[in-house]
Amino acid sequence: MAVSTVHTVQSLSSTCSISNPTKSHLGFNQKQLVFFKKTTTTTRRATTVITCSAGDTVVIGLAADSGCGKSTFMRRLTSVFGGAAEPPKGGNPDSNTLISDTTTVICLDDYHSLDRTGRKEKGVTALDPRANNFDLMYEQVKAIKSGVAVEKPIYNHVTGLIDPPELIKPPKIFVIEGLHPMYDARVRELLDFSIYLDISNEVKFAWKIQRDMAERGHSLESIKASIEARKPDFDAYIDPQKQYADAVIEVLPTELIPDDNEGKVLRVRLIMKEGVKYFNPVYLFDEGSTISWIPCGRKLTCSYPGIKFSYGPETYFGHEVSVLEMDGQFDRLDELIYIESHLSSISTKFYGEVTQQMLKHADFPGSNNGTGLFQTIVGLKIRDLYEQIVASKSGAPLEATKT
Amino acid sequence: MAVSTVHTVQSLSSTCSISNPTKSHLGFNQKQLVFFKKTTTTTRRATTVITCSAGDTVVIGLAADSGCGKSTFMRRLTSVFGGAAEPPKGGNPDSNTLISDTTTVICLDDYHSLDRTGRKEKGVTALDPRANNFDLMYEQVKAIKSGVAVEKPIYNHVTGLIDPPELIKPPKIFVIEGLHPMYDARVRELLDFSIYLDISNEVKFAWKIQRDMAERGHSLESIKASIEARKPDFDAYIDPQKQYADAVIEVLPTELIPDDNEGKVLRVRLIMKEGVKYFNPVYLFDEGSTISWIPCGRKLTCSYPGIKFSYGPETYFGHEVSVLEMDGQFDRLDELIYIESHLSSISTKFYGEVTQQMLKHADFPGSNNGTGLFQTIVGLKIRDLYEQIVASKSGAPLEATKT
Repeated sequence: MAVSTVHTVQSLSSTCSISNPTKSHLGFNQKQLVFFKKTTTTTRRATTVITCSAGDTVVIGLAADSGCGKSTFMRRLTSVFGGAAEPPKGGNPDSNTLISDTTTVICLDDYHSLDRTGRKEKGVTALDPRANNFDLMYEQVKAIKSGVAVEKPIYNHVTGLIDPPELIKPPKIFVIEGLHPMYDARVRELLDFSIYLDISNEVKFAWKIQRDMAERGHSLESIKASIEARKPDFDAYIDPQKQYADAVIEVLPTELIPDDNEGKVLRVRLIMKEGVKYFNPVYLFDEGSTISWIPCGRKLTCSYPGIKFSYGPETYFGHEVSVLEMDGQFDRLDELIYIESHLSSISTKFYGEVTQQMLKHADFPGSNNGTGLFQTIVGLKIRDLYEQIVASKSGAPLEATKT
Repeated sequence: MAVSTVHTVQSLSSTCSISNPTKSHLGFNQKQLVFFKKTTTTTRRATTVITCSAGDTVVIGLAADSGCGKSTFMRRLTSVFGGAAEPPKGGNPDSNTLISDTTTVICLDDYHSLDRTGRKEKGVTALDPRANNFDLMYEQVKAIKSGVAVEKPIYNHVTGLIDPPELIKPPKIFVIEGLHPMYDARVRELLDFSIYLDISNEVKFAWKIQRDMAERGHSLESIKASIEARKPDFDAYIDPQKQYADAVIEVLPTELIPDDNEGKVLRVRLIMKEGVKYFNPVYLFDEGSTISWIPCGRKLTCSYPGIKFSYGPETYFGHEVSVLEMDGQFDRLDELIYIESHLSSISTKFYGEVTQQMLKHADFPGSNNGTGLFQTIVGLKIRDLYEQIVASKSGAPLEATKT
């Protein structure tokens, strides 16, 4: 089965052109790429190269375990840029890709080199690097970053098979989300910004119980067993990536309720690396000092257990970082706007933009706590980063948004 | 011995007049007063009444145990108003009074009704109300507040005797400092603002050891015994006054050094009553919320054990209060100015006024910690209060200083 398809110019960005060079798709030396050709295809055809205006694509990596809210994060991110994110029109209905005006989000599961049966046969999990094709991941991310469209495979989560590829054109912002965006050093080097969603075991467990036990009728034992089974590979291959992240969102049980293990009230920490170009960490009141803040008081009343923020410098895997923490949850709009008005360097374009974004997606998971707040803020920081990168390339450096 | 003296008009404020009414000095119903006449005098003379322009004197009460830094506080307060405070010129060299351009500070020990011998004979301490003349205290404070000069007795701390009185003219700000400014309900009612200096037993003990053992050669046992002996009367008559104070300065051992009992590093709390007219409590970052702040970090470095501020609403003897706390001490000027710049509602007239005042009196005890800082701030708040009261009386309400 041939997996390369020739697309008409109409379906591509107006800044792209099509050619049929003699070189194979592995000839990356011309800053051009390249349709993916599944190595098992029987019919080989000349590779069609689509080149787009190069160099403006900003690449973002988002790492997390499966089922940890990556898709919610992505919907918040694309919303910040204005457009709704949708699967590619007319393509594979099981595509994992989301496309908006500015942003394309691909799922790195699409680079599984082994399908479900293959993993079972070889006895490796999807977390294992041996089940993933990092060479192809690298080549294609590099191509997109260089302004060249690619034909990316699709891993079908429904069937567990590797489906024919889909065309991915270089967007303004290219997000690679999945288990291993920072695992391969070559891919890591291509990232303009990287995020790690770090869900603590307690919270992961509470969430799984809620979903798998309450909604799917699984037993507590089977949930425990499934978490335990994943843990060695997770610890070996996924978790270590957080040391490379520019921002980590840690989700932990609340400390406001003694011995809470429901996992409903969360303590969320936004760990922001210092010294990252085009990224100024968010702060509370006094940059670089150590602060704790309970906004609930005379001006703002909150229901039990209230809300507590903390902020301060820390060290994270040997890097200097700033950490903003929120424990507790919002009950009402006035609490959210009050908190937004006291945060600095959140890169909003107008007063109340964080609150507006949160309200717009009030039905998303985490909209009343630190996960939604920090995902939204990271979205704004990425928009700011993107605009600064574009401005610096155009020779007219943009002042970082300072709010 | 006659203790009343006729003063020439020259020695009085130009707004005062002298008369010799037929009424005795106890006739207070004419908003006039009144020379004190010691009841043991043998020669009785017609009382001379000096009336000054009435009503502008603001009366401040400052309560604390003896040897708790009241005099330092007073020197800081008068300094805020611009002039140096000195004993009355040409008077009793053992006078306890301090006079500056704007402010007169009297010591309430001057209202001891029993001298040292008398107390010994009756077996009462100076803390005991029975050793003090609250009727006279009330009458004279009321007179001063009404614009009438008084002849106040002098308790001679050197001899332990009650000396002939000295003339006290109504100043702009009249401070009564001592053991019992808020003990008598009538006197309390006359106070426009009241302050209680609350030194914890641990710190009191550490200070006494430092002074009495190191400097005066007393034994540890004798110091302990002297503190223990005072304690019952202190707890019964002095300590309960703090419930009436508009501001309390609490001095406690540091919490930054585990098990510290040296009493050198202090944790100082400024407890400010809410709802006091002309007095807006100081706050940190966000009024009415609960905050802790360690300013030492990326922008400001501090030596061990650092500095920690806390701020928040609390309840104190059933009153709503705001509490600002400082633990630790300043090493350098930049630390002080950094902290000043982050405090709000400190009633300065220009940026850095707190720092300027602290530097001016860098040799005073407590200039590197919360006692000096909060005494200075309370001084500024009293200046602000005074200016607001004067403005409200003149019919041109003054906007409270907002810095």
